[in-house]
Amino acid sequence: MKKVAVILSGCGVYDGAEIHESVITLLRLSQRGAQVQCFAPNIEQHHVLNHLTGEEMAEKRNVLVESARIARGEVKDVREAKVEDFDALIVPGGFGAAKNLSDFAFKGDQCEVQPDVLALAKAFAAAKKPVGLICIAPAMAARIYGEGVECTIGTDEGTAKALTNMGAKHIDCAVEDIVEDKDRKLVTTPAYMLAQSIAEAASGINKAVDRVLELA
Amino acid sequence: MKKVAVILSGCGVYDGAEIHESVITLLRLSQRGAQVQCFAPNIEQHHVLNHLTGEEMAEKRNVLVESARIARGEVKDVREAKVEDFDALIVPGGFGAAKNLSDFAFKGDQCEVQPDVLALAKAFAAAKKPVGLICIAPAMAARIYGEGVECTIGTDEGTAKALTNMGAKHIDCAVEDIVEDKDRKLVTTPAYMLAQSIAEAASGINKAVDRVLELA
Repeated sequence: MKKVAVILSGCGVYDGAEIHESVITLLRLSQRGAQVQCFAPNIEQHHVLNHLTGEEMAEKRNVLVESARIARGEVKDVREAKVEDFDALIVPGGFGAAKNLSDFAFKGDQCEVQPDVLALAKAFAAAKKPVGLICIAPAMAARIYGEGVECTIGTDEGTAKALTNMGAKHIDCAVEDIVEDKDRKLVTTPAYMLAQSIAEAASGINKAVDRVLELA
Repeated sequence: MKKVAVILSGCGVYDGAEIHESVITLLRLSQRGAQVQCFAPNIEQHHVLNHLTGEEMAEKRNVLVESARIARGEVKDVREAKVEDFDALIVPGGFGAAKNLSDFAFKGDQCEVQPDVLALAKAFAAAKKPVGLICIAPAMAARIYGEGVECTIGTDEGTAKALTNMGAKHIDCAVEDIVEDKDRKLVTTPAYMLAQSIAEAASGINKAVDRVLELA
């Protein structure tokens, strides 16, 4: 049975983990018989957005606590994750990946990755264990793997340019497909960077999850 | 293309809509080519629970606003829903169905269903349009359909007894299966009332969604 760590970044597309992407990832992993442990950084969300109006709300929420909604309580502080306990790592998207796991949404190619998340992801990279980054999460790829890492965020030119500026090699990719950096065992898929429906998002995510498990 | 209304009850298993059940429902509907509109009551949540610790949090959240996290913003006040615009209705579970859409979690067989939700569900019943109730949502079946309605919440005796006391005919059901009241076109499935994994929950929900679409 393959053991997979999943890093969540809150609960909701605009300020946290994209819920559909996260659940599709967990569903596919479960259907394939993988054993999953969710993690999240124990930090305050960058902000809280009203998902009905798009307006910022005058409250504070914690990324780990909100991630527990997606994980039905079964989530741990990412600092507790040990690379030796897992065969693979997957990070779903949503703005949480660009606002909480990193600050890519605000600083673009000048972004930094949250230290605990970066340390864990780098440990998977160093151990040559497969990693799946979904949607906007590949914005962290160059910080994790360094120059030349091949990945995709779909086809958006501005976002792709920012990744290129950081040293990544961006490869355009259709929503139902994946990009694989074979040397680094990194699998990426656009999901809601391109998807017009949840079924479209699932088509690429399922392929990415399957490939990560094959590589594990 | 079948048009399906989905009623959400917040965002998180312990105080709102069960996220996995909701997303699996939306995914299956999308994969089957159905057109979906999510709805939720525009009311305050009964309470807010920290999903990591289980403790109540000293804050207030709105059911419609939090449901928008699952719906990626595409959710409307349930009072805007018109039965003539849809071919079917589905209500995922989670404690939100028993705390926000009804007060079954607190009053058991003395429960009442939130008036806007009850009015809409009764309109589907009166129009003989198919309805799917998932997980604990069948606790509302007797209030919607009256005496003799056949449904399931799985195998939990205490919960089944409460449904029976309200006039429903409870039928034990395995997690991967559904119960159908053919006269009333009501389809129910236990999901996380029994599921030990998200894949198990999906097995019954997929069957329920497929059957609701066949009946539509």
